[in-house]
Amino acid sequence: MLRKIAVSGCGNVGTALLELLCEKRAELKEKYGFEFEVTLISDLFKGTVADKNGLDLNAAINSLHTTNSLTGLNKDVRGEFGELLDSAEVNMLCEATPTNVETGEPALSHIKAALSKGIDVSTTVKGPLSLAYDELVALAKQNGAQLQFEGVVMSGTPFITMLNHGLAGCRILKIEGIINGTTNFILSKMYSGASYEEAFNTARELGYTETDPSGDIDAWDPAVKVVILTKMLYGKEISVSDVDRTGIANVTFEDMERAKEDGCTIKLIAGIENNHGDIKAYVAPKKIPMTHPLASINGAINAATVYTDNLGTTTIIGPGAGRRATGQAMLLDLLTMAGKK
Amino acid sequence: MLRKIAVSGCGNVGTALLELLCEKRAELKEKYGFEFEVTLISDLFKGTVADKNGLDLNAAINSLHTTNSLTGLNKDVRGEFGELLDSAEVNMLCEATPTNVETGEPALSHIKAALSKGIDVSTTVKGPLSLAYDELVALAKQNGAQLQFEGVVMSGTPFITMLNHGLAGCRILKIEGIINGTTNFILSKMYSGASYEEAFNTARELGYTETDPSGDIDAWDPAVKVVILTKMLYGKEISVSDVDRTGIANVTFEDMERAKEDGCTIKLIAGIENNHGDIKAYVAPKKIPMTHPLASINGAINAATVYTDNLGTTTIIGPGAGRRATGQAMLLDLLTMAGKK
Repeated sequence: MLRKIAVSGCGNVGTALLELLCEKRAELKEKYGFEFEVTLISDLFKGTVADKNGLDLNAAINSLHTTNSLTGLNKDVRGEFGELLDSAEVNMLCEATPTNVETGEPALSHIKAALSKGIDVSTTVKGPLSLAYDELVALAKQNGAQLQFEGVVMSGTPFITMLNHGLAGCRILKIEGIINGTTNFILSKMYSGASYEEAFNTARELGYTETDPSGDIDAWDPAVKVVILTKMLYGKEISVSDVDRTGIANVTFEDMERAKEDGCTIKLIAGIENNHGDIKAYVAPKKIPMTHPLASINGAINAATVYTDNLGTTTIIGPGAGRRATGQAMLLDLLTMAGKK
Repeated sequence: MLRKIAVSGCGNVGTALLELLCEKRAELKEKYGFEFEVTLISDLFKGTVADKNGLDLNAAINSLHTTNSLTGLNKDVRGEFGELLDSAEVNMLCEATPTNVETGEPALSHIKAALSKGIDVSTTVKGPLSLAYDELVALAKQNGAQLQFEGVVMSGTPFITMLNHGLAGCRILKIEGIINGTTNFILSKMYSGASYEEAFNTARELGYTETDPSGDIDAWDPAVKVVILTKMLYGKEISVSDVDRTGIANVTFEDMERAKEDGCTIKLIAGIENNHGDIKAYVAPKKIPMTHPLASINGAINAATVYTDNLGTTTIIGPGAGRRATGQAMLLDLLTMAGKK
């Protein structure tokens, strides 16, 4: 079965996905029987192009790299998103537009449009999932569509696949994770002796911080991820304001020194605890012993430890960001969805 | 669809699986739609019992715990294994008899009998896979059966599921793992200052070593696991004698002291490297820097780091042994196979 894919959003992640699809076309067919065309590429600023018989991926990638737009393809189309999905005969949408955690838009409308047409969706965008998880899951079910989102936590590190598939049969009792790379980079620098200001400035110089750093520093980013995981695991009604959230701005050099004297370090831990159905979600700087599986996770790396009834403790470590790593998350979603139909 | 399960081998793992199935019957139905009866339980020493309508699991577990036999059920049967599978109407076999890495028996014959009848097989037994991987995979394919073996490496820690599913779309370039708990326990003790003899004796006192400790110390156990992983990942013809294998018996207190002075530790690393199709498989004590993801894996814990083209480095850490953890591996296999049919 030939899949017709739409890529919505051509920032780093969408472009990396196009590159992976282009580079791996033969490998994906041979290894997974996955055959595809990309029939729609849409970006608010770079243009929208479509061809129901398949766009030239090399040309699209080249146009994005050289002109930062899609106009070089001469395949421009206009129209409402749902109509574009129809005319490009799309059956898999990869949604990678910028995250807006307050409205979820434009990704939320795109995902709804696709699911309501029975189109499978992979998304790396957190907003729609934290705001409308239940609605989207119901919409998918109602229309026989699938919704996958490996990339929303830990980029392509297959943490969500591990929770949903690798640990099937277990009860998830507790999760503790380092799921924000920027703050982990800063705390790692502080453990090595830097002050908060020095560490923050280094992170900024290396491009790890956003224009508005509060999403990381005040722990909004990991809190939104915790909301999505809590909904996914326990179906609980929860919003980001329900997460007990403390950022790292008040962690001092002295706090870290005292932790070190006690054989500990300080990490920004995102956690979910399920005490017989009583579910607690939090993000906070925590003093953890150096023997803790997360203590040695340094720099921009992410990691999560899962406590289960059958298996005790399992930890997964990997990249938490990066264009190709997040493109890989979408590629995995596509293969997962294709394998289930 | 009601699954009829056979459990072959009632040692620690088989019994733990029976306990998990008994304890989680309602949960498995509700969460995964997995409904089953265990219709055959077979053990060379403890007896063989069958009922095509389903055995009483509580009674079986109780009989095993109190009398170390299955005779308490009054459901004894006799016959050739294949005939027993037929008369008990089995469609999923869980094979957990003791490993014989030289002949693969009796597990090899059991697995062949099941696959040739189109019965899905989960096994935790390494021998048949290291000796007859290609034959078993072909037999499964030919008869529309599935063959899963999450438990052969890292017990229920879902490393094999991560390789096959979580990293789909990636090329696996290299694996480095600590996949033998006994030797890792000994080397961890030596890092803490013990001599080889002291560390070995502690491992023996804690019951971590086998009667014949050479399977661990001389690295036969991880070498067999490397063979299975190499076959699974690359389809390569390889036997345990092709693995470049060095055990830990010659690692001295002085070696470890020198490693520590260099900011390193010594770990027994099982590795597979794929250099553009040239595949190297080895197990050897290696000096690795303390910043390496495997350096902080201490005690009987297992871990593996996977290097891929799309994702860089991903590491998974978890139990490498244990009755319930290995029972969980078989439970995962059952759910995986049920989800694919």
